[in-house]
Amino acid sequence: MKRNIITVPIRRVESGAGAAAQDLVAVEEPLQIRLAARDIAITMRTPGHDRELAAGFLFTEGILQQASQISGITADEKGGVNVQLAQGVQIDLEPLARNFYVTSSCGVCGKASIDALRAAGCPILPRGRPVIDARILPGFPRKLREAQAVFEHTGGLHAAGLFDASGTLLGLREDVGRHNAVDKLVGAAFLEHRLPLSEHILMLSGRVSFELVQKALMAGIPIVAAVGAPSSLAVETALRFGMTLVGFLRGERFNVYAGQERLS
Amino acid sequence: MKRNIITVPIRRVESGAGAAAQDLVAVEEPLQIRLAARDIAITMRTPGHDRELAAGFLFTEGILQQASQISGITADEKGGVNVQLAQGVQIDLEPLARNFYVTSSCGVCGKASIDALRAAGCPILPRGRPVIDARILPGFPRKLREAQAVFEHTGGLHAAGLFDASGTLLGLREDVGRHNAVDKLVGAAFLEHRLPLSEHILMLSGRVSFELVQKALMAGIPIVAAVGAPSSLAVETALRFGMTLVGFLRGERFNVYAGQERLS
Repeated sequence: MKRNIITVPIRRVESGAGAAAQDLVAVEEPLQIRLAARDIAITMRTPGHDRELAAGFLFTEGILQQASQISGITADEKGGVNVQLAQGVQIDLEPLARNFYVTSSCGVCGKASIDALRAAGCPILPRGRPVIDARILPGFPRKLREAQAVFEHTGGLHAAGLFDASGTLLGLREDVGRHNAVDKLVGAAFLEHRLPLSEHILMLSGRVSFELVQKALMAGIPIVAAVGAPSSLAVETALRFGMTLVGFLRGERFNVYAGQERLS
Repeated sequence: MKRNIITVPIRRVESGAGAAAQDLVAVEEPLQIRLAARDIAITMRTPGHDRELAAGFLFTEGILQQASQISGITADEKGGVNVQLAQGVQIDLEPLARNFYVTSSCGVCGKASIDALRAAGCPILPRGRPVIDARILPGFPRKLREAQAVFEHTGGLHAAGLFDASGTLLGLREDVGRHNAVDKLVGAAFLEHRLPLSEHILMLSGRVSFELVQKALMAGIPIVAAVGAPSSLAVETALRFGMTLVGFLRGERFNVYAGQERLS
């Protein structure tokens, strides 16, 4: 098992005085994702839940549609994971080809326009359901933090949590890359045949970019809430696809950017 | 001029009571980067300083080495920028080819091992210089925030600031993607023939990933300081290339993860 957190020697300085100390940092390491032995992507991730990450990535990027397409996921000796296809399954790498030569923080750029998202099969969410009691939202950041063992130690990991409509935390994943945290969470549900997550809320520890909204949409998640700010394109995409988007969820306050009808 | 911030209608909720309101959000939009009319990359960025972003990206990714290779940078009607090459200039797209099919937040994955960085031409920084007075560091976050007009309004932008050894802020760039903020800053210096930035300090508003350390190294920046946590690979890379890396710079406190000899 690879470590997701390591200790490093540092010099801690306070008010001009320094002292040798130890600090915990989150591990960042490349992971090669292969599909049917073909190199598909390399992502800088925090080790742990690599199988879910690979499956989630392939699903949220539109390459795989259901877990039955997979016959197995194995780690290889070179630090990668290989997703094997069930017999007779054909895949279309076109969605990834559109990402050809993408820059960092930009997995979705090739399908960047909202229209392209629709063409790629992103579902329009059913209107007006579920309706949740908005009073459960302010408790989410604390529940996420309490479950975030590693984050508490390093300050270096993003978290993504899946809640049900009663406010119970069902799952949590952490990563140096926020998109990876979401892929790990969605990948776990994908592998367990729990998609679409149509009665669930995705809670994010940071900001909300277009990419994260897109990944939530692919998983059918109707409500996304975040501690941080959404981007313009995240808001626009949420409005277009009927997603409820909550930002700046802090203490008893939050902003609703889209889909207010799901909050009672 | 494209806007980097827009107003959106929201519902602001506090202690269970909601009211219609307006909020400012940071703009996130795809930018196609072309080199000699060839599609190179698409990045999700905040509009503004697109020329610097394109030039900085091509430089920090190892495609271009000096500004004289460029004959012009023009915006095209499809929302992209095209970097034109001076007559007779040949370029090698191999560094980008290694990034082939990268996932988001992962521009550097193809050259992910530290050894590969060396092969790609990342310089080892000169040891022990410059030496700066460590007492200037605690003032950096405030100077960055004060100069960060947009961030103050949206909470949605990452900032990268360039300081000189006396603690003067020389330049600031903001973006929804932290790598873009650094590319804009480095790109401006690249276009003005100010590289390497061997007497400078790069200040980051967030966390420090491997990718950001790699971009700073390409620009020859010897000192990187950040408000947030570094990743394991950021620390390891800083140690290997002789960079000074400061994290958790908050108030009068900070942690030195590498290159302490440059701080007096």
